[in-house]
Amino acid sequence: MSEIKLKKDVRSRNQQQADTNRRLFRKSGLLALNILGSPGSGKTSLIEQTARRLSSKLRILVVEGDVETERDADRIRALGIDAIQFQTHGSCHLDAMMVAQSLQEVKLDKVELLIIENVGNLICPAGFDLGEDLRIVVGSTAEGADKPIKYPEMYLHADACVLNKIDLLPYVDFNIEEFEAGARQTNEKLRLFRISCTTGSGIDPWCEYLQNSYTKQHNNMR
Amino acid sequence: MSEIKLKKDVRSRNQQQADTNRRLFRKSGLLALNILGSPGSGKTSLIEQTARRLSSKLRILVVEGDVETERDADRIRALGIDAIQFQTHGSCHLDAMMVAQSLQEVKLDKVELLIIENVGNLICPAGFDLGEDLRIVVGSTAEGADKPIKYPEMYLHADACVLNKIDLLPYVDFNIEEFEAGARQTNEKLRLFRISCTTGSGIDPWCEYLQNSYTKQHNNMR
Repeated sequence: MSEIKLKKDVRSRNQQQADTNRRLFRKSGLLALNILGSPGSGKTSLIEQTARRLSSKLRILVVEGDVETERDADRIRALGIDAIQFQTHGSCHLDAMMVAQSLQEVKLDKVELLIIENVGNLICPAGFDLGEDLRIVVGSTAEGADKPIKYPEMYLHADACVLNKIDLLPYVDFNIEEFEAGARQTNEKLRLFRISCTTGSGIDPWCEYLQNSYTKQHNNMR
Repeated sequence: MSEIKLKKDVRSRNQQQADTNRRLFRKSGLLALNILGSPGSGKTSLIEQTARRLSSKLRILVVEGDVETERDADRIRALGIDAIQFQTHGSCHLDAMMVAQSLQEVKLDKVELLIIENVGNLICPAGFDLGEDLRIVVGSTAEGADKPIKYPEMYLHADACVLNKIDLLPYVDFNIEEFEAGARQTNEKLRLFRISCTTGSGIDPWCEYLQNSYTKQHNNMR
């Protein structure tokens, strides 16, 4: 089997399982998020802030994907939110089979918002549908404004882009207009949010977006 | 062919080419660096600072690996330094064949310091020897202090770790001792540098390290 054929096989197996996951999520009436971004862009911090605001309104379950350690799930559990840690032990992305495996003991009809944090990587996870309803890419003002055009695949398939660490804007050389223009150039339908997980700025509109998306999806099911 | 067998084949083909590259580099008497790190950790900024300090002492050639765009090579050329851009068009790491291909038109005996900037990715590039003499991982204070223990492969095979953006320390929640302890826990021989590409702090000891490494290597050849 050639390398290209094998890659196609891996992708097609993933897509089958992603479709199965999605049917299961739809049946349960939950909203599923796939959160992607570089290491240290603030994915876990965003989930912490989101869980703090929304946990009184929606029943949340978090799946944490990491190469190693249980640290991120521990951070979420410290807030009283259920979290499952999936360690990939070297693999650079989550796939749909890993998500299914993580959720096999879970009663999904008790979950309203399923947040899956992918492995910190701005390239490989873009190629793997997990069955999510919304794909969210997290960027940060510390990373440089050229990232959307240097890593276009990640932005191309996303529904929303959350630009984190806007509290650092006075201290870093970052052009927010350039960043957003680059993101929109890659994907004109992308919803853009500017937030700071440190100060809490911009978290409210982001959480409203999630709540509206949940309501819309839930009503569509009826 | 199974997935595991294919991966082994890819690695072994890479290792053969990496050994060829290394022999060629040794014969030319140059010092070759493989610079790795997350997107936005400051790899290109570090190369800019390094080139500014060392270009009067060493003849430098930079190879820029990126998923897309010629931007990083343009940044280096703007300093009057020779740079070759290699676009991987989706691939998440450089391999030894890409480096050989980038250098096929180059007279290596005219180069003293070869700096290869890998694709921004804290996972996949760790598995691919390019034939470098020194492997350098660049981290940043904006990324979080837990990165060495969450992405251990990257630190395990590195010779030095450059912690960038120390000018942001007053504004971010980053424990520098925790970061360095995590890095040393993974790899006790790791040389550690604390720098800021914005203020220039710490660049001198880093450049001394490179110059000493070059001299040592060059003397060993005689």
